[in-house]
Amino acid sequence: MADTQQTSLPVTLDDVRAAAATIAGQVERTPLNLSKTLSAITGAEVWVKFENQQFTAAFKERGALNRLSLLSEDQKKAGVIAASAGNHSQGVAYHARRLGIPATIVMPETTPFTKVEQTRSHGCRVLLNGLSFDEAKAEAYNVQQREGLTFIHPFDDPHIIAGQGTIALEMLEANPDLDMLVVPIGGGGLVAGMAVAAKGLNPDIRIIGVESAMYPAMKQEIEGKPVHVGGSTIAEGIAVKDVGRIPLEIVRSLVDDIVLVEEAHLERAITLFAEVEKTIAEGAGAAGLAALLAHPARFSGHKIGLVLCGGNIDTRLLASVLTRALVRQNRLARIRIIGDDRPGLLALVSKIIGDNGANIMEVSHNRIALDVPAKGAEFDILIETRDSQHTQEVIEALTLAGYPPRQA
Amino acid sequence: MADTQQTSLPVTLDDVRAAAATIAGQVERTPLNLSKTLSAITGAEVWVKFENQQFTAAFKERGALNRLSLLSEDQKKAGVIAASAGNHSQGVAYHARRLGIPATIVMPETTPFTKVEQTRSHGCRVLLNGLSFDEAKAEAYNVQQREGLTFIHPFDDPHIIAGQGTIALEMLEANPDLDMLVVPIGGGGLVAGMAVAAKGLNPDIRIIGVESAMYPAMKQEIEGKPVHVGGSTIAEGIAVKDVGRIPLEIVRSLVDDIVLVEEAHLERAITLFAEVEKTIAEGAGAAGLAALLAHPARFSGHKIGLVLCGGNIDTRLLASVLTRALVRQNRLARIRIIGDDRPGLLALVSKIIGDNGANIMEVSHNRIALDVPAKGAEFDILIETRDSQHTQEVIEALTLAGYPPRQA
Repeated sequence: MADTQQTSLPVTLDDVRAAAATIAGQVERTPLNLSKTLSAITGAEVWVKFENQQFTAAFKERGALNRLSLLSEDQKKAGVIAASAGNHSQGVAYHARRLGIPATIVMPETTPFTKVEQTRSHGCRVLLNGLSFDEAKAEAYNVQQREGLTFIHPFDDPHIIAGQGTIALEMLEANPDLDMLVVPIGGGGLVAGMAVAAKGLNPDIRIIGVESAMYPAMKQEIEGKPVHVGGSTIAEGIAVKDVGRIPLEIVRSLVDDIVLVEEAHLERAITLFAEVEKTIAEGAGAAGLAALLAHPARFSGHKIGLVLCGGNIDTRLLASVLTRALVRQNRLARIRIIGDDRPGLLALVSKIIGDNGANIMEVSHNRIALDVPAKGAEFDILIETRDSQHTQEVIEALTLAGYPPRQA
Repeated sequence: MADTQQTSLPVTLDDVRAAAATIAGQVERTPLNLSKTLSAITGAEVWVKFENQQFTAAFKERGALNRLSLLSEDQKKAGVIAASAGNHSQGVAYHARRLGIPATIVMPETTPFTKVEQTRSHGCRVLLNGLSFDEAKAEAYNVQQREGLTFIHPFDDPHIIAGQGTIALEMLEANPDLDMLVVPIGGGGLVAGMAVAAKGLNPDIRIIGVESAMYPAMKQEIEGKPVHVGGSTIAEGIAVKDVGRIPLEIVRSLVDDIVLVEEAHLERAITLFAEVEKTIAEGAGAAGLAALLAHPARFSGHKIGLVLCGGNIDTRLLASVLTRALVRQNRLARIRIIGDDRPGLLALVSKIIGDNGANIMEVSHNRIALDVPAKGAEFDILIETRDSQHTQEVIEALTLAGYPPRQA
């Protein structure tokens, strides 16, 4: 990878500069901020580009707007179509309406109602069709043919790629000293555009792509291996099987390396963005930070630009990620107590827990488990404590009282 | 209230301007952004000042830094002390270290370990003393006397007030058209400083204070009523019994009204900041938006500046608020099914729920409830759905199959 020959590539620095001029004033010029705390945690100098501050909370608006702006008048009049239940559709729908272009978005039938409503709120037509994204996409091509619309691809399109590349222009204008950009890869549009722009401005800058370990499609393509991906990742925005042909060509030329991140690092990155930066990242948006956490030696000492590329995470999922982080920190602990089933045991145990300042969140009482004596009883108690040390104190107090708990 | 006579007040616009010059470049000049979506929801033009983007994630740094900068050389050498487990202590500790001033922070013994560690990480001495904030404060005054330190009060101090007022200067520089500022009130330092600055620049601007309905201490003081406050509010940052004497005098002169917000509106405001702005607000930080949600007629049509004054919310609390919002949206629903206790009932019911695309989160099976027949069984099932309509579909499918659930 990375021979930095841009001459024959399908997108050039000038294309990205043209896109920047086209979209200027119509998308947010988001901040690039140094995070002292994330720098201390990762050992790198971490600069975060907050693309979750776009109106639709994701970078996809840039490419979509650039693409829409370049349509002919006839194409604008006929309208556009896209297939996605995600950030690309929001970007297309939002800017199509701003520009007075009729837009149709095709989504799988199983798309959550709130997401359908949110997309509809941009004033576009939403078609629910098919049970999978592939089926929705097939229907989108049908409608496109039938109605003479223009299909707006989420990544395999030079104008989309040029639009996404404007992020790198802004980052290097804000801080020309960045020596490495760490960029999530789904279909490859973002990393391709940013690589063209950044290497065009500074051939020495290093571009590191990040994929979810369950969806390493670009890495497999680059390495000439069969694409083998799947699973339920929290980074659904970059869970792509078929990467773009144009992004692939650019990545092959300009991207220095692709690293993979596991779910645990994605969860920790989402949690750190919330706790440290007070900002909300979706899984894909946290992938860059996850890479720094997963491979610290690879990044330490560098001046790194991370793209927090999107903030559209379901609140239930976010709540679950934050809660799981507490379990890892041992602030939520499930303890099991085996007693002799005399009346008052639960009252006694509860009093000890309460006297030690912990909260009981849940009790389940099991008289028929086979690992307790026939006349015994087993309680599973979920306690909330101030911290790991406090959990230990509660366990010691129970042990001292003759009810040594096991962590369940 | 609000005779706009500033001549005799203990803090003036010039004091705030001097504070702005003192702290310039040492605290973040945080963005003031128009929120189109929050404007649409509230019917007002909503501009948000993101003070949660300060390094310690709260505005308190401004007053603390101004106060620290005005110490004599001898005072700086001897050091400072503050009593708080909250944002004020973080602000004092962080800037004291930057300025090379020894700092001592006194916190109650029950302060969570993580908070103690975070404060210690700023390089200050942390003393854990007393079981309540009042006891910690008493100890702080003892240590101050004994060691000759300077006590840094969180709000009842003209230099602290002048520092907090710099927020209003920045807001009105960024958007001089704001006609109303909505500002959380705890001890009153923030609203007092902002009122002095804003009314000094524009006597016609209206200043509306916001208190938690459980802690309306400033409102009671202004109305000459006995102060009667208490309860466990999510807005703990503004849960103050003894407001400052200096803030009280300024509020009496310059603040046009004080509105109260209930917990449900605070929760909804935190959720909206997360869902719409992808930003994390603590309860007190969300109080301004909560006021707009609670009293829409009072604010609609105005150009409003809201201070999102802090983002330090415990992640467990945040997760709980976000999850409760889902319950309100009916995306998490607990349904109760009464069956005849034949084997296979749960399997049948589970299959119907699964076939309809919902997830089962929890099942509890109750054979001894008195509201079911002696040979019957009762299941409480917690299901997760895409949305309220989907919940309804699941309930209809179960009813059609002969197992009409009740929402429990």
